Amino acid sequence: MDKKELLVIKIGGNVIDDNAFLSKFLEDLAAIPQPKILVHGGGKLATQLAAKLGIETQMIDGRRITDSETIKIVTMVYAGLVNKKIVAKLQANKCNAIGLSGADAQLIQAHKRKHPTIDFGFVGDIDSVNSDFLQKLLEDAYTPIIAPISMDNAGVLLNTNADTIASTVALAMSSVFKVKLFYCFEKQGLLSDIKDENSIIPTIKIEEIQQLIDNKVIVDGMIPKVQNIKFAIQQGVDSVCLCHASNLLDISRESSNFGTTFLN
Amino acid sequence: MDKKELLVIKIGGNVIDDNAFLSKFLEDLAAIPQPKILVHGGGKLATQLAAKLGIETQMIDGRRITDSETIKIVTMVYAGLVNKKIVAKLQANKCNAIGLSGADAQLIQAHKRKHPTIDFGFVGDIDSVNSDFLQKLLEDAYTPIIAPISMDNAGVLLNTNADTIASTVALAMSSVFKVKLFYCFEKQGLLSDIKDENSIIPTIKIEEIQQLIDNKVIVDGMIPKVQNIKFAIQQGVDSVCLCHASNLLDISRESSNFGTTFLN
Repeated sequence: MDKKELLVIKIGGNVIDDNAFLSKFLEDLAAIPQPKILVHGGGKLATQLAAKLGIETQMIDGRRITDSETIKIVTMVYAGLVNKKIVAKLQANKCNAIGLSGADAQLIQAHKRKHPTIDFGFVGDIDSVNSDFLQKLLEDAYTPIIAPISMDNAGVLLNTNADTIASTVALAMSSVFKVKLFYCFEKQGLLSDIKDENSIIPTIKIEEIQQLIDNKVIVDGMIPKVQNIKFAIQQGVDSVCLCHASNLLDISRESSNFGTTFLN
Repeated sequence: MDKKELLVIKIGGNVIDDNAFLSKFLEDLAAIPQPKILVHGGGKLATQLAAKLGIETQMIDGRRITDSETIKIVTMVYAGLVNKKIVAKLQANKCNAIGLSGADAQLIQAHKRKHPTIDFGFVGDIDSVNSDFLQKLLEDAYTPIIAPISMDNAGVLLNTNADTIASTVALAMSSVFKVKLFYCFEKQGLLSDIKDENSIIPTIKIEEIQQLIDNKVIVDGMIPKVQNIKFAIQQGVDSVCLCHASNLLDISRESSNFGTTFLN
């Protein structure tokens, strides 16, 4: 029997920080008829709250450290404020959303990141996803909304990259569903010329990725994002699309005339 | 067929504010073999956070008002920090907890409180509980952990009294389960002499409540708590017990030698 389609959609911080745009995005999401899971980032709210409370952002070698105060802040903001705001807006649009952190129902089990020289603090690398639980929620027509917080096996909450959560969840669901993963962000897709918003590369085969990195078409923060995408496709996710957050309704229409689609 | 037993347990703010005591309480909760639902209050954390952020607590006629900034704070603290801290500690004790606000899966639908003279702001009075969803979670051996936040039908998050959530949830589950409701707090039960911690009244029939109010045995903040209890029993909750939070293991042992039990 053919697998049923499942959309795993990730929205980044820039969408969350813009209230009007977030409302439109969630209205569009609620209108998508397919089963779907949303993974959200945190936006600037956590940094702003930390600043107001006088908690300094610690950086080591240019990398952010999640200390014991910061994990409390991100738990409050990501799993509390942002997650429930999204859930409530979806409910208002008749989408029966349920907000989850990685601690709830052991959804995302992780371990504290190990690094030879840097102690990242309360940062988690993912070990497993409770896909059975997500499947049951989807069968009952609930839409899971996942905050980027995971948990280790001693019950310690950990800050985890939302892009990685999205690809890992997509992967975990691939045994049961035909999973299409969408990274929605503030650009139209992968651009062949970073200065030209219209130079969208419509499709990329994963074997072409390294060349695009070598040619500096894929640069900076896009490199780990694309590596994540490559891994997801290699491991069984049907397709991954990088697109603007305003393309959400195109997703449900199965239009292919938007964003950059990564294929095997 | 006899209904299966379900324990609905409410813990108040004083337990949440004491880390060591909370840990012990959650260890005891995890050890209870029966299906259970925990409803938690907020503790002083929300007030402390609001104070740190310079958000003043508004009071009208001695009653707290939840303004637009305060509902954000309580959503962060109750549904984020406190809820996930409880879930994570239970997970560490091998209890598969899942944290929920009233917005998630339309768990607790409410409306903004109407009052002839006072605008309480974002305060919700409960209309309904999604008991089907709770029942499914319990059947799958999950333990729901409910934060005192509800939602109206326009997707507006509302602050709601945790005692009332506990009694309303208990009531909603009574059609399927034999529900025992426990209010765990910092006293040993209802005392016949408020100065004597040993003067616990072991059982009270709900018809005796008015006399205890008239005789000033039940006073102040205990009056609405006991009215809540009376309503719950009248509407079908099997029994309600008011006890110290350290009595949790006695609950599972079905010992009756603790706290005050209210009966029909």
